[in-house]
Formats: sequence, C-alpha cells, structure tokens
Amino acid sequence: MIGIYGANGFIGRHLVRRLAAAGSSVRAVSRSYDKSFIEEFEGKVEFLEADLRQPIAMASSLQGVQTVVQLVSTSSPALKNDYAIADINENVLPHVEFLQNCVKAGIKRHVFLSSGGTVYGPGAPVPTPETYPTNPISSHGLTKLIVEKYIQMHGHVDGLEYIIMRLANPFGPGQKFRKGQGLIPAILDHYKRRLPVRIFGAGLALRDYIYIKDVVDAIEAVIQLSGAPQLILNIGSGEVRSVIEVINTIEGVTGYRFERDYLEARKTDVDISSLDISRARQILGWTPRTSFREGIEEAVFEVDV
Amino acid sequence: MIGIYGANGFIGRHLVRRLAAAGSSVRAVSRSYDKSFIEEFEGKVEFLEADLRQPIAMASSLQGVQTVVQLVSTSSPALKNDYAIADINENVLPHVEFLQNCVKAGIKRHVFLSSGGTVYGPGAPVPTPETYPTNPISSHGLTKLIVEKYIQMHGHVDGLEYIIMRLANPFGPGQKFRKGQGLIPAILDHYKRRLPVRIFGAGLALRDYIYIKDVVDAIEAVIQLSGAPQLILNIGSGEVRSVIEVINTIEGVTGYRFERDYLEARKTDVDISSLDISRARQILGWTPRTSFREGIEEAVFEVDV
Repeated sequence: MIGIYGANGFIGRHLVRRLAAAGSSVRAVSRSYDKSFIEEFEGKVEFLEADLRQPIAMASSLQGVQTVVQLVSTSSPALKNDYAIADINENVLPHVEFLQNCVKAGIKRHVFLSSGGTVYGPGAPVPTPETYPTNPISSHGLTKLIVEKYIQMHGHVDGLEYIIMRLANPFGPGQKFRKGQGLIPAILDHYKRRLPVRIFGAGLALRDYIYIKDVVDAIEAVIQLSGAPQLILNIGSGEVRSVIEVINTIEGVTGYRFERDYLEARKTDVDISSLDISRARQILGWTPRTSFREGIEEAVFEVDV
Repeated sequence: MIGIYGANGFIGRHLVRRLAAAGSSVRAVSRSYDKSFIEEFEGKVEFLEADLRQPIAMASSLQGVQTVVQLVSTSSPALKNDYAIADINENVLPHVEFLQNCVKAGIKRHVFLSSGGTVYGPGAPVPTPETYPTNPISSHGLTKLIVEKYIQMHGHVDGLEYIIMRLANPFGPGQKFRKGQGLIPAILDHYKRRLPVRIFGAGLALRDYIYIKDVVDAIEAVIQLSGAPQLILNIGSGEVRSVIEVINTIEGVTGYRFERDYLEARKTDVDISSLDISRARQILGWTPRTSFREGIEEAVFEVDV
C-alpha cells in the first residue's frame, strides 16, 4: 500500500489519480478533502482525514503502508522569515515526529517532496547539482532542508529507504491560487479576474517551471525504483524562464494583455534557480516530456472552461 | 560589551576569566551560577541570571552588547535520537528566537559554538574541511547544524557578522563530569572514584581532543577578528587519539591502572572525527599550543588536588 500524505493538494490529487488508474493500492491522507475529489474515487482509494500535527492519527494511518509519499507542507516561500518559529513548530516538528512513527511502523520507503528552488540558496552554480552545499536564505527553504536532514539521519541509523525530491515550481490544471504559492497560478487567477499582474523587481528572476504530469511521472518512477535507494534528486524541467517570459507566454496563449505593476524586489528571492536534473534522468530513466507552452495551454484551458 | 551566553559552563568560565583578565567589558549570562564563580569576579563582570528559553529576559540581556558568544547547549551527543523532538523544542527553537532578538537588537557579531565531531557525519574525509557536506547522524549534531543554518540565513538577509566554530572535544580543568558529556572528564571522574572505565566497541574510535586554553585562544581571536566576517571555522588540536590512547595517557600521568569494561559500539558514533584546522590557523593566526600530555597533566592535577 502507498500512503499519500497531503493527498488533497495540487500534486496529491494528480498523484492519487495516476496511481488509482494504474490499479495501485492507495491510502490518501489529508487534513481535509474536496468532496468532488472523494466522489471521483469512491471505493477505489482509501480516504483518511488526519492532520500531520495529530501524531496518533498519523501513526495509525501508517498501518499496512510500505511506501510513504510525503507532500504535506504548510510553509510557503513567500512567507517572511519572521515566521521561522511558526515554521519550526508547524512544519519541522510534525515531520520529525511523523518520521519517527514511520520508522516504528516499519515503513520501507519514504518519498519526500522538498524544494529545489529554496534549499540551495544564492550563488549556486547554474544548473545546480544535488551535491551543492545547501544554505537556504528563507525560513521555507530551511524547514525543507531540516526535514531532509532528519530523513537522512533515519536512513543511516534505521536503514529507511528514502528519495528526497527537490522539486522545481510545479504548475498545471487543478492548481489553486493561494497568495504566495506559485507565479503561474497567480497570473492565471489575475487573468481570470482581469487584474493587473504584480512583478517583483524587473521580473527577470529565472525559475524552473515543471508541468504537473512530468512531476507525477517522476514520483511514480521513484515509487517503483528497485534496490534500496537513499537518494536526493532534483526534479525540474531542465529549463528556466523569467517572470516576464511566463507572463508573455500566458498572454500569447490567451490573447489577453495584462496591466503590469512593478514592485520592489524581495530580499529572500534568489536571482536564478536552475536545477541540474541529470541525476534523476539517469537513475529514474525519467525525463520531462511537456513543453512549457503545452503546459500553459493545459492550465489556461482549465481556466477558460 | 561582549555577551557570554552559557557563561557558567566549562568553556564559559574559562572565557569569562580570560576576557576579564584582559580588561574587556563582559556581561555573563547563564541560567544559574556557581557562587564561587561570581565571587571571583565581583565588580569586574556583569552577571545576569536568565535562561535561553526566556525570550524576554534574553532580549533585554542584549542591551549594549556588540558581540554575542553563544555557548548554550542543552543537547548532548550521547542522547538517543528518540530525543529529537525535545532537542528541537529545547535547543533549536530558543536559539532561533534568540537570533531574531540579536538581529532586532542590532548585535554586530554572533559567535556560535558548534560541534565539529557531529555535524559532518560518517564517511567524511580525514581531516575534514569546513566545505564538506554536513549530514549528521545524531539528533545532537542535527540541532547544531540547524542553528548554524539559521545563523547563516540572518547573515545573508540581515548582514549579521558571524563566526561558527565547529569545535572538537574540549577538555581541561574545571570540566565537570556529566554522563555522556565527554570522554576525558568521564575517565577522570572514574579515576577519582577508582571505578572501572566503560569502553564502547574496541575503544578505537578516534577523536580530536583540544585543551581548553587553546579553545579560549581561538574564541578570543574570533572576537577580535577585523572586517565583517561570515565564517565557519573548525577548531581542534589537529590531532586524533583513540579511546584506548586517552586511557593510557591518563594511566601514564596518574600511575593508576583502570579496570576496563567493554560494551557494544553505539550506532550514532562515527569511527573517526578529525578536523582540518588549516582555515582557522590561516584566518585567525591561531594555533593550538598545548600538547595532549600537558593538557592531561593540568586536568589530572586539578583532580588530584
């Protein structure tokens, strides 16, 4: 049985859909659910409502699970570093306790979605390989890195198999707009509501945007990977785009012209975040297959419907 | 003014003594004090009783302080990883809050005593340079690493000057024996009480032991370092000794023969921990000056008195 934690999130919903379609035995765990999502899979997927901050519910959710896919994250890259204490309390501590429960429950494999855009910090080579030192400059990046370090500790001490996926910026249909949670859903939301787009700095910050289908391909490959892996893998599209390029592409697909508001650059933003994905290509036999424009078309299609 | 946090500890007491002798303006902060220690410096040092877990007391303790030397650690390398949650609550969180208060108070320089023996983890090259990846396998090593990462974040975002000192195993007079806190004080305690020594594994684990006077030399150099340093420095003797060698040296100095109890090796112990101290030598113009035997003689002298 595969336990998907954070199953009702953007990635979680796509992943549950894929695994259920493939006939895998799936337990979806989330603190809450969209009703329509449950109805879609009634009978085919086991749904469990539990919060990562409820250690007893979490411990019992692990019964019969061999592989955990941990997608839960309450932190956000856009939150100020003033939230560092809250991030530790609400993100780090529940994850560490959950990990201990995974080890006690005899979980075989732990798949953790980390953040390729924030764990390395500024000054990293372009593209950044997994071996590069990790010095995050945001509380969000730090909480991801800290959880990674605890996973590696349990890997060494307890023999837990793990794959830490340092993910670029995923996008695609089903991604809900939440303030500070991704550029593309924000722009699509503003397109839908015909609002001006806000651009930090000159809009030249370069990021790797990966289409959700390619993300799910990678997670599926990681679940099926043979051997007893203990790995960190960058997962991205292998390309970068500026904020301006993203806006231009969406304008090109929709035919709409945005009004543009330029705001002051944020101190915790790195200028470029580009992941070297050659390790994942090689080990997983995986490659991103969706072009940026195709991905944007799919995302826009959902908005226009 | 220099603020020494954890001033009543082993390193703290030596450091206060050194700085007071040099005529520096010192505020000693500790959750409690040995009465004799306060009496020794009455009038020359400002003593403040406050716990790192009291954020308001901590914030007000920073008034007028330019340089913070942070020696407080309630975690211990010997504690089981089961204490990970407690380590985060009692070590990481208070340190992170303290750092935020340091930034708010406009502290110029933050000196943090980290752990050279536990932050790198197993498989590190011998000797280990500061640039080597940090993958601790103990909760203690993780808490030290996490605090390092938050310091670096504030260095980048807020311009905080910092020197992270990854310290080997300090020893010398004034080191109190506490279970799990250092091999040499444990053996000296057992010598004093004529008890058998407990040896984990074959006693061949190699560690770098540094005499307290050399540690204080390094901290003094770090406090006085010019420029706006943001540095990680290994601080050690540059040599390693096995557990057996340590016992033999103490037997050589005292003329006493220990009964030896051999116990099972601990999973969180790395086989060898050896620090490359060339960066500290070069940047600080510092070098350890006390031979291992001399250091042991000083430590034994205190026990015998």
